[in-house]
Amino acid sequence: MTQQPVRFGLIGTGRIGQVHAASIAAAPDATLSWVADPFIDGARSVAERFGGTATASAEELIASGEIDAVLVASPTPTHVDLIEASVRAGLPVLCEKPIDLDIQRVDALRPLIAELGIPVALGFNRRFDPDFASARARVAAGEIGALEQLIIISRDPAAPPADYVKISGGIFRDMTIHDFDMARFFVDDIVEVHATGTRAFDPGAREHGDFDTAVTTLRAASGAVVTIVNSRHSAIGYDQRIEAFGGQGMLQVANAPTSLVSLSTAQAVEAKPAYGEFFLERYAEAYSAELREFVKLVRGEASTSPTFEDGRAALVLADAAQRSATEGVAVAVDLGSSDLAAPDLAANRTAGA
Amino acid sequence: MTQQPVRFGLIGTGRIGQVHAASIAAAPDATLSWVADPFIDGARSVAERFGGTATASAEELIASGEIDAVLVASPTPTHVDLIEASVRAGLPVLCEKPIDLDIQRVDALRPLIAELGIPVALGFNRRFDPDFASARARVAAGEIGALEQLIIISRDPAAPPADYVKISGGIFRDMTIHDFDMARFFVDDIVEVHATGTRAFDPGAREHGDFDTAVTTLRAASGAVVTIVNSRHSAIGYDQRIEAFGGQGMLQVANAPTSLVSLSTAQAVEAKPAYGEFFLERYAEAYSAELREFVKLVRGEASTSPTFEDGRAALVLADAAQRSATEGVAVAVDLGSSDLAAPDLAANRTAGA
Amino acid sequence: MTQQPVRFGLIGTGRIGQVHAASIAAAPDATLSWVADPFIDGARSVAERFGGTATASAEELIASGEIDAVLVASPTPTHVDLIEASVRAGLPVLCEKPIDLDIQRVDALRPLIAELGIPVALGFNRRFDPDFASARARVAAGEIGALEQLIIISRDPAAPPADYVKISGGIFRDMTIHDFDMARFFVDDIVEVHATGTRAFDPGAREHGDFDTAVTTLRAASGAVVTIVNSRHSAIGYDQRIEAFGGQGMLQVANAPTSLVSLSTAQAVEAKPAYGEFFLERYAEAYSAELREFVKLVRGEASTSPTFEDGRAALVLADAAQRSATEGVAVAVDLGSSDLAAPDLAANRTAGA
Amino acid sequence: MTQQPVRFGLIGTGRIGQVHAASIAAAPDATLSWVADPFIDGARSVAERFGGTATASAEELIASGEIDAVLVASPTPTHVDLIEASVRAGLPVLCEKPIDLDIQRVDALRPLIAELGIPVALGFNRRFDPDFASARARVAAGEIGALEQLIIISRDPAAPPADYVKISGGIFRDMTIHDFDMARFFVDDIVEVHATGTRAFDPGAREHGDFDTAVTTLRAASGAVVTIVNSRHSAIGYDQRIEAFGGQGMLQVANAPTSLVSLSTAQAVEAKPAYGEFFLERYAEAYSAELREFVKLVRGEASTSPTFEDGRAALVLADAAQRSATEGVAVAVDLGSSDLAAPDLAANRTAGA
Repeated sequence: MTQQPVRFGLIGTGRIGQVHAASIAAAPDATLSWVADPFIDGARSVAERFGGTATASAEELIASGEIDAVLVASPTPTHVDLIEASVRAGLPVLCEKPIDLDIQRVDALRPLIAELGIPVALGFNRRFDPDFASARARVAAGEIGALEQLIIISRDPAAPPADYVKISGGIFRDMTIHDFDMARFFVDDIVEVHATGTRAFDPGAREHGDFDTAVTTLRAASGAVVTIVNSRHSAIGYDQRIEAFGGQGMLQVANAPTSLVSLSTAQAVEAKPAYGEFFLERYAEAYSAELREFVKLVRGEASTSPTFEDGRAALVLADAAQRSATEGVAVAVDLGSSDLAAPDLAANRTAGA
Repeated sequence: MTQQPVRFGLIGTGRIGQVHAASIAAAPDATLSWVADPFIDGARSVAERFGGTATASAEELIASGEIDAVLVASPTPTHVDLIEASVRAGLPVLCEKPIDLDIQRVDALRPLIAELGIPVALGFNRRFDPDFASARARVAAGEIGALEQLIIISRDPAAPPADYVKISGGIFRDMTIHDFDMARFFVDDIVEVHATGTRAFDPGAREHGDFDTAVTTLRAASGAVVTIVNSRHSAIGYDQRIEAFGGQGMLQVANAPTSLVSLSTAQAVEAKPAYGEFFLERYAEAYSAELREFVKLVRGEASTSPTFEDGRAALVLADAAQRSATEGVAVAVDLGSSDLAAPDLAANRTAGA
Repeated sequence: MTQQPVRFGLIGTGRIGQVHAASIAAAPDATLSWVADPFIDGARSVAERFGGTATASAEELIASGEIDAVLVASPTPTHVDLIEASVRAGLPVLCEKPIDLDIQRVDALRPLIAELGIPVALGFNRRFDPDFASARARVAAGEIGALEQLIIISRDPAAPPADYVKISGGIFRDMTIHDFDMARFFVDDIVEVHATGTRAFDPGAREHGDFDTAVTTLRAASGAVVTIVNSRHSAIGYDQRIEAFGGQGMLQVANAPTSLVSLSTAQAVEAKPAYGEFFLERYAEAYSAELREFVKLVRGEASTSPTFEDGRAALVLADAAQRSATEGVAVAVDLGSSDLAAPDLAANRTAGA
Repeated sequence: MTQQPVRFGLIGTGRIGQVHAASIAAAPDATLSWVADPFIDGARSVAERFGGTATASAEELIASGEIDAVLVASPTPTHVDLIEASVRAGLPVLCEKPIDLDIQRVDALRPLIAELGIPVALGFNRRFDPDFASARARVAAGEIGALEQLIIISRDPAAPPADYVKISGGIFRDMTIHDFDMARFFVDDIVEVHATGTRAFDPGAREHGDFDTAVTTLRAASGAVVTIVNSRHSAIGYDQRIEAFGGQGMLQVANAPTSLVSLSTAQAVEAKPAYGEFFLERYAEAYSAELREFVKLVRGEASTSPTFEDGRAALVLADAAQRSATEGVAVAVDLGSSDLAAPDLAANRTAGA
């Protein structure tokens, strides 16, 4: 209450950087102190609207002595270096997903973070969506008994430009990575990954050897199975649904309605407007909640922020899915949550023979 | 119109046999002439209610000279022999699914059926469900553009007895086989199968090396992907839904409501009664429509009855799923619908590497 | 169980008469013995399909000595005489609504029925609709606390021909009469009626001084209020909904879906087919249940059949509504269910002054 | 764009006053300059949070010379005097509903407002709800053909304290007044009012001669009929729905869901959380939009703000409803929207005789 607001240094002022800038400005216990972007006009514009000193240099920001935490919203290839520089400077980091597209770079950074003990949080904003969070809490509270099947339907409104597909790391590392984290949010003992990817419609995916359509199955040691259904496009708009099926019932999270109005005519009844929003609107509340939890983390309070390890786990799953989809094999993963994972995997798979 | 009703010989008078007896009795262009069951009291009881001569001997029925077609509703191990005896007698057959649990027995029968040219229809009743049929027709009519993803959710109300699990042939051949046929009803160029099965709750499945929970992914040459989500139990009741996702929209088939009444209170709003029915009630209309189409087939009219080949294809998929789930590999299948299936499979899977 | 089936004499073989003939034929404890219609071809056709002796003379049917009960499905003006002839012959009657359009004729018949004690049931089939019956039973069971507001939305697919409007007795006696009975099914102490009628679209209504649009408010002694919203047309199809609002919640009966399929596109999501059915299809189950209850009544068993008195009460409400709509006043009614009705009416209306 | 923000004087700092203060502070083209409340601590608290000079005197605020417009959020009995003082000072007013409980005081003020021509807007916030506004726009655009029936369901979560009921002016002037304005938002030619009020549950209503349950029917010259269903309590939460029925279809506005999560179990399926919000949350967006339109009005731009005349019309309807409910008669009203209203009223009501 009488604590000083947490002073943020924001690195990156693109679309998502601006969302974070607004969240920081709106939060009562956070303030924007420095803003860095090599595109200095971007930094200046954000600083003018939301406060802080603008710079083209992330190093200057980190060395300013005027910030308590760093928010990394710059392009993915810069994440690892910026996280390292920040934690070496003793500054907690909230980094946009993914940590990196290369698990080796992530693993190289891992010991330093463990050694220094500086908090590094990952921007898995969907954990903070009130409805997903509610569904998960209700599953945890036992409302549907033991969780047996989780279906995540996650479709973007439209395929990205081919140039983006080229550098995206592929659908699993770029898009499904959010769903992998959501899977782990509900199910913490995943031991096996199988993925099927196809090119159903997008020339960009075809050109760059990526998939535009994917289904991923995750098996948990407990016997629970997660199914993730992805598409790079969706005529009805952003399609984000979850169905958690348990021994005693089912919890479903529907798409957010764009309107409360439905139309009935001789042609069709109860027709509602299509889902007009994309992630910035759909998860607006989630971005704010994400920041609040990170502020708690910076202050050493109990926090539900996903961590560097969560970011790494999602990438491990994405790599496994990529391999599975290209080689046609189920891929065992050890996310470190259970020593029993591998044996159970074998046992389960051969028992039916 | 002025044609004589088709005279049926019904073999098997268990639960499903009785359903068929009632359908035959109710159909204006069908009549029940003979009823066979080694459990002669069963045959007599059905004959009393719905007409016909009762016998303990299927052979006597086939040889009676008083029937135009055979309806096989006896236990699965008897199907192949009864089909063979019927077609050798020149009698068209409507046989309950599956043809057999052993693809080798099915393939051994295949040439004879092809040679004789006597119609053999399979009891994939769900194709005749008005809502699934409507969804499929609307997909075919292009309402959602090209079909890209099909999600089939298929959960039984409660796990069967352990004794049944033991002889069932496993979840894929016993339960998913209906969903495999539904997948082929929508998507005709399936080239690859991956399945994940687990034992989440059912002691019977654990005891007999079967799965109680399964997710199967089918890849089509076109790039479409089918996901089948199965569970041997469902607290909310029989759960039978389909979501067809295409480039221009989505068609969803909901569960059949048990009631039009919903309750809203301070605890919850719009709560509806659970789904109380199982397949005999849920698909009551489908059984009647199935019979109508078979009568057309017997009469040599245009008919949409699924055939022996459809029954075989579903079993091929089930075998592939069983192997995939136990060995952890994607399994290529050639259902004969496309010579290009195998090359495309390889091409698609390696392209992303 | 070992009782003989009830032998029915059916008078009238129009659309609704045929529905009843089919119900009788399908019921295990009923049989069609005689069929009368001055249009003798109609009688013969029904007798051929469902059994019984055909005649042009209702008198012959009643005097046949071969029937146990009479089902009156002839035109409204004949109802009173046929009921009288039947009960004088000692035959229980199930009569289609309304008893008559003229309350004086109804009241003239009333003493005879009371004196003879022969059961006379009215064809208020909606009471037997499984969903309305369920909602009412759940209200009675206290699921929503005391019932405070009942909203009945009742709209026909299309306005009737002007010739029919002319002889219909007006929208309240012809169409709303079903809703008046439904109101009494839920609320038994109605003491006041107010109705508003307009001519919004139908030339036939305008020509014959009838309304095509009406809202009726019924006040109960308990303080409950019923609102009936009627229209003679509905572009979306037959619209039959009920909302029961109580101190602790709300029960809603939705329209019967024509299909389980919904379509989502870029234009609209979750669009379902319009309601294609009219009363014969919508209330098919209700007609069967109505007959079953009447058979119990004939046999002297406990029965929920609505009675002659229920038919009279609905007509009293319809007359009150007609007067209210034309004179612009609330009309007090005494349906005989409470001696306190009138005083309470006055008390309630002046208390707010 | 380059205009100065409109400087507001806010009178009244209760719950609704605070909402307006926040709206003013958040609007880019409005600023809070003065805040008045005889309870000076309230004024100071609001001024501290949202800016402006605090005073106990509304007169001082109006005379300050530092404001461009007045927002009246003080108790109803003060409205007329504050409006008069403001417009005499040349200041446009946005006044919370109702103008007054006494139509004579309203009519006494009417000529002055007409003479001075200073804009006076009324706080009928629901017109600015995005969903109601969308439904109305779509009706106006002809999506459902000519509007024939409008059903407004409007129920508060819980009955107010008996002390409040005593001074409220009665349910029609206090609560239904919002619905009367909504009725006029959709239907502009209302000519007749009938209301039924009862005391179903609230001791406070009984004690003070008010109703807790009411149904009001409004007839339009066009033949359209509006039905307003009110209750002072609702176990499921704030219940605010609209159904607009036209010759070619129906538009429905549903309650705002509190959550996207639904629960299905063996007891019930698709159960959603109850509606937790009351008007401040439900209509949060509407309050902001209301302010935006008023700022346009102050600036002389085209504006959809409801006016003093709209406030008067709603009160005329409320008075008519109160009289109808107590005297049991339909009450003709002339809201000045049509010279033909009265004759048509007579014509319509007698035509059916």
